[in-house]
Amino acid sequence: MRASRFLIATLKETPADAEVISHQLMLRAGMIRKLASGLYSWLPLGLKVLRKVEHIVREEMDNAGAQEVLMPAVQPAELWQESGRWQQYGDELLRLKDRHGREFCVGPTHEEVITDLVRNELKSYKQLPVNFYQIQTKFRDERRPRFGVMRSREFIMKDAYSFHANAESLDETYQVMYDAYTRIFTRLGLEFRAVQADSGSIGGSASHEFHVLASSGEDAIAFSSGGSYAANIEKAEALAPSGARPEPSRQLEEVATPGQKTIDAVSEFLGTLAEQSVKTLIVRGVAKADDAPAPLVALILRGDHQLNEIKAENLPEVAEPLVFASDEEITAAVGCGPGSLGPVNLPFTTIVDYSAAHLADFVCGANREGIHLTGVNWERDLPLGQCADLRNIVEGEPSPDGKGVYEIKRGIEVGHVFKLGKKYSQALNANVLDENGKAVTVDMGCYGIGVTRIVAAAIEQNHDDNGIIWPRALAPFDVAVVTLNGHKSEPVRDAAESLYQQLRAAGCDVFLDDRNERPGVKFADLELIGIPHRIVIGDRGLKTGSVEYKGRRDGESQDVAIAEIVAFVQARI
Amino acid sequence: MRASRFLIATLKETPADAEVISHQLMLRAGMIRKLASGLYSWLPLGLKVLRKVEHIVREEMDNAGAQEVLMPAVQPAELWQESGRWQQYGDELLRLKDRHGREFCVGPTHEEVITDLVRNELKSYKQLPVNFYQIQTKFRDERRPRFGVMRSREFIMKDAYSFHANAESLDETYQVMYDAYTRIFTRLGLEFRAVQADSGSIGGSASHEFHVLASSGEDAIAFSSGGSYAANIEKAEALAPSGARPEPSRQLEEVATPGQKTIDAVSEFLGTLAEQSVKTLIVRGVAKADDAPAPLVALILRGDHQLNEIKAENLPEVAEPLVFASDEEITAAVGCGPGSLGPVNLPFTTIVDYSAAHLADFVCGANREGIHLTGVNWERDLPLGQCADLRNIVEGEPSPDGKGVYEIKRGIEVGHVFKLGKKYSQALNANVLDENGKAVTVDMGCYGIGVTRIVAAAIEQNHDDNGIIWPRALAPFDVAVVTLNGHKSEPVRDAAESLYQQLRAAGCDVFLDDRNERPGVKFADLELIGIPHRIVIGDRGLKTGSVEYKGRRDGESQDVAIAEIVAFVQARI
Repeated sequence: MRASRFLIATLKETPADAEVISHQLMLRAGMIRKLASGLYSWLPLGLKVLRKVEHIVREEMDNAGAQEVLMPAVQPAELWQESGRWQQYGDELLRLKDRHGREFCVGPTHEEVITDLVRNELKSYKQLPVNFYQIQTKFRDERRPRFGVMRSREFIMKDAYSFHANAESLDETYQVMYDAYTRIFTRLGLEFRAVQADSGSIGGSASHEFHVLASSGEDAIAFSSGGSYAANIEKAEALAPSGARPEPSRQLEEVATPGQKTIDAVSEFLGTLAEQSVKTLIVRGVAKADDAPAPLVALILRGDHQLNEIKAENLPEVAEPLVFASDEEITAAVGCGPGSLGPVNLPFTTIVDYSAAHLADFVCGANREGIHLTGVNWERDLPLGQCADLRNIVEGEPSPDGKGVYEIKRGIEVGHVFKLGKKYSQALNANVLDENGKAVTVDMGCYGIGVTRIVAAAIEQNHDDNGIIWPRALAPFDVAVVTLNGHKSEPVRDAAESLYQQLRAAGCDVFLDDRNERPGVKFADLELIGIPHRIVIGDRGLKTGSVEYKGRRDGESQDVAIAEIVAFVQARI
Repeated sequence: MRASRFLIATLKETPADAEVISHQLMLRAGMIRKLASGLYSWLPLGLKVLRKVEHIVREEMDNAGAQEVLMPAVQPAELWQESGRWQQYGDELLRLKDRHGREFCVGPTHEEVITDLVRNELKSYKQLPVNFYQIQTKFRDERRPRFGVMRSREFIMKDAYSFHANAESLDETYQVMYDAYTRIFTRLGLEFRAVQADSGSIGGSASHEFHVLASSGEDAIAFSSGGSYAANIEKAEALAPSGARPEPSRQLEEVATPGQKTIDAVSEFLGTLAEQSVKTLIVRGVAKADDAPAPLVALILRGDHQLNEIKAENLPEVAEPLVFASDEEITAAVGCGPGSLGPVNLPFTTIVDYSAAHLADFVCGANREGIHLTGVNWERDLPLGQCADLRNIVEGEPSPDGKGVYEIKRGIEVGHVFKLGKKYSQALNANVLDENGKAVTVDMGCYGIGVTRIVAAAIEQNHDDNGIIWPRALAPFDVAVVTLNGHKSEPVRDAAESLYQQLRAAGCDVFLDDRNERPGVKFADLELIGIPHRIVIGDRGLKTGSVEYKGRRDGESQDVAIAEIVAFVQARI
């Protein structure tokens, strides 16, 4: 491609509203432009990279036996009402009415549409398993779109949905998809990890997320230092402390803690450690009947630990989504504010985190304003009821595979595979006849890849102060040929044109930068854009029959004989 | 591709609501399924064809120097307000509000978005000309979606937009696009014609439509029998009759025509020919001032001719869109109903079609109920004011290139190129600096191809009673290998597998129909789906070392030695 026929829209200044590096570099390199909040146009340079992602995703999905389809972006409300998500989905679902007043949404996902298709088309277990995918534009009306295409409202997703006559078949395809995802991210040249994940609101029994590792990642992921265990911190299991709980050694005492309302404040005031106290969090429980008021539930954690809201939400006693009781509710029920709460004589169902349950002689609120208890002991001063894993793991604690301790890294979620089970097939009544002619509800898996987000994630992981450093598979061009003073020097123009043709004939995707710009401008643009290999042709080098080669990642420049440069570059691609 | 890994979803019965053959066959072949009115899911078979269209379109656009971009489907109202189309576009524009109550539409086209992009990115005439295209999902909220993907609400379009520092540059790119379109439709293997077209509501100075010829086409297109002139009938020029108007030979007479209100009725009643009478149509004119009432305008045509509404609408005296006066308005203004109107002493601005202006001794209404005039003559009985081409051409009349007579065929519009000029660039203030550093409004062209519609149009043009007959470039597979009794015969399975591998190695896209179905079912499916070449492998043929070959289009079956079949098929692909 010649620069004269390709929009180079680089920016010198970093746009003010771009917070993360990928957003800044995508704007500065001229890959995208903002149309409105969370809506971006892809310029030719950005689209070239996006298409490379799409191509690899498509190829590996095809190789894995998935069949490509294309479903409408605009979906009728009826199907979402049938699954119950029309009500549940909230404001992220972009709803609209057509000219006849019928309700639709711009689809953020396609479980309903594909399940409807499958219930109409497939009748027998003999037609299963089947796995349909599409690479398609979706819309999610984010409350606060940000980070460019990393969290935009309109985006391209590869979504796949598999259907099965039984759970074993789902397990098999789930593994096939897991392996395909591993190949996809490997081919893309990204450093990534597959981690166990919570199935969240999509539902289902098992799921893994695929994360591109980058310090700017929104997600924390927890690894075992010695084994293969890895999980999103939302899901990472905190082991219960081993051994027996220490015996009580102190008396229960009441102490006045006037004005001390946080764990840190109380600990400092009493001269104790936060890990020697417990905190009491009050959340909404599940009502016994539809018309009964929701009870309150107390969650007890060690003072230095953080509640894991996902784990709490997944408890049958706790309402989903998680809702914390208000100060007013707490005061009305207990008679004190949240800063003085404690598990002793608390009039709620109480669930204790394993670590808090392992404490002896601990500190907690007395359920009276400005008073705490010290030397509290389970079973002696209060019963220890239900225990659970309620907290986020912390770095350095033992990992559940028994092979080391937890490490935490940051990741950007770019893929997610789910075993949905029968959640949607049951709601939409998607059945097939089994071997015995009996109708069975199909099992279902779903598998997403954030195609647009991958481009941003790759940049978060691969850049330096000068710009993007594309992995080979994602680079918009393999190599740039740059002329120095080409508008004046015919030998330079001729040599560049000849090299351009030779490299193309050798199968390279070449960018010929024949712009009439200062060398510094061209070099800065090419570093910003991140083309992996650069060849500079100038009069001086031509006199000795050489050109200058520079790799974007290693950054050393060297002179190479013009007769050898094609083979030289080919060897590096 | 093996049938066992590919959804074959053929239907025996023709779905009741499919009116046209392409819609019927796309449903029956399992290419598409309806999700809701005007919304279709593309099944694997259909999508394979769609992707082939996309691929050819993309390749030719790239070759023509256009640059691919991707703009959002969801567009902010502000840009449409700036161009004025937020008000003008009507109910086909699918409007919606986001969670913050901001107004958007799901884009039916992207003139506003691309013009906004260009006005922000391009500053100098040196950056022009430039031509951006995308292949993207659009939405048009059709009042009555029908004919499957031929007139659906959501569809894929290739839209391109070129920008120029002057009109000559636009002319050049327009020709480049015209030529690219010609190559695209030629490569697709379709019988098509490029015809002059009205620029319609999109505006601009010149446009051509590309039509796939098919008897079921919605458009009538007019050709010159001896030359290259071709135009949509909306645009096709009707030549004024040559020679002088005949002299008057009869007296003006009033005749009673009680109850005769149509041209045919009056002609029969009077024993005259329709072409010897004129009809008078009253339409809304253009108001002199914004707050003045719109005057009425009379359009006079020969009795046997049809008004061309587009030609009428394009007259400066006539309101756009065309609105016919109601019977009440006519009676109030003239004192008689529309069946007794005539041009003599009519109190309106009158525009006479050239053919009507060439009549002598004609019949017309007397502007009194139940009375007509005969022997009417222009200039003698009434003045002949403004004349214009107001009518549809009829087959057999002279074509305007002077090289023959008009023929009319039916076409399906699949492409449209427009010289937009400054319509959008002016409204959105898209300027660049010219050679002298002066800001000039850019000239603009736009170029659309209905990608989804091409699939349907190809079927309208290429089918028989048994199903689709794909042109080679569009066929979902090149060749089908069919096993007879393959589930019982290992030699058949082995031979089929071997041939499948050989054909793939030879570069063919092969469909291996190894389904455990009766031969008749398989053959019917393959004819319906329209795979161009079919090879049948059975035990009987294998005994003599032969297979059966049948071409979908020519339909003759013949035995071919199995050792020669790969070369045999290759020679035909």
